[in-house]
Amino acid sequence: MDSTYMYRALALAKLGTGYTNPNPLVGAVIVKNDSIIGEGYHRLYGGPHAEINAFSNATESVGGATMYVTLEPCSHYGKTPPCAEAIVKKGIKKVIIAMKDPNPLVAGKGIQILKDAGIEVITGILEHQAKKLNEVFIKHITTGLPFCVLKTAMTLDGKIAAATGESKWITDETSRKYVHLLRHQHSAIMVGIGTVLADDPLLTTRLEGMQGRNPVRIVLDTHGKIPLESNILKCDTHKKTIVAVTELADSKKIKSIEAAGAGVLMAPVKNNQVNLNYVMEWLGKNKFDSVLLEGGSTLNYTALQEGIVDKIITFIAPKILGGTTAKTPVGGTGAAHICDAFLLENMEFFKLDNDLMVEAYIRKEVL
Amino acid sequence: MDSTYMYRALALAKLGTGYTNPNPLVGAVIVKNDSIIGEGYHRLYGGPHAEINAFSNATESVGGATMYVTLEPCSHYGKTPPCAEAIVKKGIKKVIIAMKDPNPLVAGKGIQILKDAGIEVITGILEHQAKKLNEVFIKHITTGLPFCVLKTAMTLDGKIAAATGESKWITDETSRKYVHLLRHQHSAIMVGIGTVLADDPLLTTRLEGMQGRNPVRIVLDTHGKIPLESNILKCDTHKKTIVAVTELADSKKIKSIEAAGAGVLMAPVKNNQVNLNYVMEWLGKNKFDSVLLEGGSTLNYTALQEGIVDKIITFIAPKILGGTTAKTPVGGTGAAHICDAFLLENMEFFKLDNDLMVEAYIRKEVL
Repeated sequence: MDSTYMYRALALAKLGTGYTNPNPLVGAVIVKNDSIIGEGYHRLYGGPHAEINAFSNATESVGGATMYVTLEPCSHYGKTPPCAEAIVKKGIKKVIIAMKDPNPLVAGKGIQILKDAGIEVITGILEHQAKKLNEVFIKHITTGLPFCVLKTAMTLDGKIAAATGESKWITDETSRKYVHLLRHQHSAIMVGIGTVLADDPLLTTRLEGMQGRNPVRIVLDTHGKIPLESNILKCDTHKKTIVAVTELADSKKIKSIEAAGAGVLMAPVKNNQVNLNYVMEWLGKNKFDSVLLEGGSTLNYTALQEGIVDKIITFIAPKILGGTTAKTPVGGTGAAHICDAFLLENMEFFKLDNDLMVEAYIRKEVL
Repeated sequence: MDSTYMYRALALAKLGTGYTNPNPLVGAVIVKNDSIIGEGYHRLYGGPHAEINAFSNATESVGGATMYVTLEPCSHYGKTPPCAEAIVKKGIKKVIIAMKDPNPLVAGKGIQILKDAGIEVITGILEHQAKKLNEVFIKHITTGLPFCVLKTAMTLDGKIAAATGESKWITDETSRKYVHLLRHQHSAIMVGIGTVLADDPLLTTRLEGMQGRNPVRIVLDTHGKIPLESNILKCDTHKKTIVAVTELADSKKIKSIEAAGAGVLMAPVKNNQVNLNYVMEWLGKNKFDSVLLEGGSTLNYTALQEGIVDKIITFIAPKILGGTTAKTPVGGTGAAHICDAFLLENMEFFKLDNDLMVEAYIRKEVL
């Protein structure tokens, strides 16, 4: 057993990022006589699983070999036959698994099939890394809700715009390119109507040198204020724009939005706004495993209060704007006391050209 | 020539941090037959220089040895005789210097004494590191002004206090301890009267396990509003509190402040406030080489606008407070456009327990 092979399997898994949703990212490596004789990963939703791709790519007979796989092999007939059975048939002798299937309804069943066939099974190798890699899948499969990333970009003094409202550009080109990579990785992107009215954004994925995937665009628009000539309604991609409105919107306007080609989601009202939890539940049920929230400061605060945010990604530019009235990443009423702050954990940071990128997770209440 | 010895000399130099102001930090290592036979550093203002300490600690005759020293040896009679002459007398054969004396009036004179005596001199080894180590000394000796560090602590959404104004504590204990180390390293600490009225701070250096140096405390108090019972006027240390007032302050109150034991600096008025540049010039002339600015958001903006800030140290806590009205590190009018932002350079970051510490330098206008 050599964790180097599992690192390789994790690296392979990562290559599927943005293409497998709502399926997990999985990589597999087949090892015989201390050499890799086959490897594969889950490339595309609906396509063959990592284990099957590894078998297809094997350069010699896999009988008696060891397989390293980042996720417990599946045991059910979905879009493809169960991988656990394929592993048994191929004569693999030992299977090393990073993490069990997070779905409590099927967890352990794949391993049981392997064990019943006399295959040695080891689990938990680089489990932490595997869980981080599939944080989106784990959230979606265990709760039915999408994993929500709140993305923001600010100066080192916490401003997302100048006092006049000007916000182009806070961060440098490298950070802005990274945002397009984030869009590619998420199945939906969500903004408030304020952002549409202020910036008229496209919210498409524009990546050089690779075929990026556009996320579905969700606009939270309580009163149906979206202008029909908005870029977000016109941009021609295979993915729809969904406008989440409420009964407070004019029914004629709703019809015009639909006529403009957008989907309309009629959501209940909560505190005079679209009920965010309803939208998240609807998205989760409709196979959206992840939402990138590119909101303004008001929406960001509501999203945090409603408990829909899992992770925060903050780009920090080496600039100071100042300004008592300049907007900050999170507005709203705000916490009254320091002890009421939303707590973050596992904060990590990366240098991105001149900017700094900080990633952190919302600490969930442990009841 | 081995830069390892210069690294050692730089590390020795650093040990003097907080004790040598307004003198530079200097370390020296004497090497003979590839072994260190003596080392020393400038420990205390007024005490022997690094070179002399290295000679005192030498374990064998230094004749024919090489000396590594982080700063060009001095050539003048100050509180101690010139080190360059001592080096010549001791029979050192070769001197390797990280950086020349930054004072344009004396730079090169120490090197000339060495060269005239037939000693081989090499300069510029680990020069960048030496310059960073002595950034405070360099600023003070070349401009006559103190090096000013703006220190702030905020949440990941850029708040220095909750919407109610509560600010204890944004960061965790490790960061707060680090602030006391910063106080120890600076010869003065500066706050606005707003901070005194709101927090009634001591602004002393409280370090466990080491004898910390208290900086002189400067309060910017345009109208002489400081309450005579303020902690900052009462705290019993060897260092004074200086209250910078203007003609807008009541003369009776000024006398009471002096009677309470504080120094009073009468400063000119600029934009209805204490003229910050005047205060900095006064401090520089009075041998204060460094100022730690622990201001509120208004003072921080003024300080940036007046161009007195050299470096920013920001502690970022893994918390989100939210709040449109919650204070941010830099307030005031703010820049109208992104292109008018104060630009930072050489941004570096460090993890401090759970918090993140970001250091950056104000990019000065190149005319």
